[in-house]
Amino acid sequence: MGNQPLQLGAVLYPGFEMLDYFGPLEMFSVLGSSLITINTVAEHSGPVASAIGSEGAVGPKVVADYGFDDAPAFDMLLVPGGSGTLTELENPAMLDFLRVQAEKAQWVSSVCTGSALLAKAGVLDGHRATSNKQVFAIASMQSDRVDWVESARWVEDGQFFTSSGVSAGMDMSLAIIQKLFGKEAAETAASYTEYTWHRDANSDPFIDELNVMAKELGLL
Amino acid sequence: MGNQPLQLGAVLYPGFEMLDYFGPLEMFSVLGSSLITINTVAEHSGPVASAIGSEGAVGPKVVADYGFDDAPAFDMLLVPGGSGTLTELENPAMLDFLRVQAEKAQWVSSVCTGSALLAKAGVLDGHRATSNKQVFAIASMQSDRVDWVESARWVEDGQFFTSSGVSAGMDMSLAIIQKLFGKEAAETAASYTEYTWHRDANSDPFIDELNVMAKELGLL
Repeated sequence: MGNQPLQLGAVLYPGFEMLDYFGPLEMFSVLGSSLITINTVAEHSGPVASAIGSEGAVGPKVVADYGFDDAPAFDMLLVPGGSGTLTELENPAMLDFLRVQAEKAQWVSSVCTGSALLAKAGVLDGHRATSNKQVFAIASMQSDRVDWVESARWVEDGQFFTSSGVSAGMDMSLAIIQKLFGKEAAETAASYTEYTWHRDANSDPFIDELNVMAKELGLL
Repeated sequence: MGNQPLQLGAVLYPGFEMLDYFGPLEMFSVLGSSLITINTVAEHSGPVASAIGSEGAVGPKVVADYGFDDAPAFDMLLVPGGSGTLTELENPAMLDFLRVQAEKAQWVSSVCTGSALLAKAGVLDGHRATSNKQVFAIASMQSDRVDWVESARWVEDGQFFTSSGVSAGMDMSLAIIQKLFGKEAAETAASYTEYTWHRDANSDPFIDELNVMAKELGLL
């Protein structure tokens, strides 16, 4: 790493899942502002409402510092999932933003159904990736050019890190911190947050839930 | 529970810890808007900046729906910790708000150093409570009328739930959901969020870190 803080672009959209977003940001925040800058970005700057449950009701609002139009190129992207993913899959502004930013970024990460957006944008073509277990099909049906890995807590492939659902984003983020800033930094983040780090990317405690909700929703 | 959604008042202040706040809110959000309303509240309504690390730098901003002056009485309070706690311990508006709201609320919960604020406000007098492990003294030095429990993932005592640091708030919140809405609702929240629930309130994986950072900071 250079002497400048890593510029993280953390993407927001209406109906994003709170823990998909703030689990990773918490872990990255422990690095401190000398190592990382957390930039929030959405289609339009200003307040963006999170999801409450899977029903599309409105939760707490988070302020986007940047709109897609005035966002700089980021060193790393973080794309959360959430019930709002379904709307964003049809939003050209979102897909274009992810495509353009991913080309410039050194690292691209997603949590939960965030990988559905990256896949639809074509960003994951030719790469291994995973997604939320209960609605895995929402991601896997976006592209057959992605090598979808069903059983994984998270998947690292080149510049891409994709995690399973919600809480898995914290485990993935600690792995990213270990890769970029060393094992001690990751251990410090886990200890500071009193988080029992699930360290094995290939061990998936929720594989038995694969597509359970997707079937209930009639997606399969 | 009645037929009205439980009104949760989730307290914000500058320098709150992101996961202290959004870990619990994620778990509660899975209940859906028919069972719970998540209200964000701070001294003044509008954007409130979170902490990045322990150094007081500014992280993502969350919008407070209510100011202390126009907030209704809530059924349940959630008080997060974070580096901003130290400032709030000297803020009469915060301490008065907690005192008045806690008298009316059916349930009062805190994460991490949030219990320091409740203790300073006198709300925890005569009750058992816990706090963040690494800076436990920040809470325990606020009041000798609280029965401080060092080794606990979280502590339930009457209307009060207090948790250990950061991630422990998620385990506590699942216990609250189990108590208020039943075991199945808690299991659903854990499964939906792919979270491996730490179910034993008395088992504390981070007790060896007790006051390690408090000693470094010269508090002990």
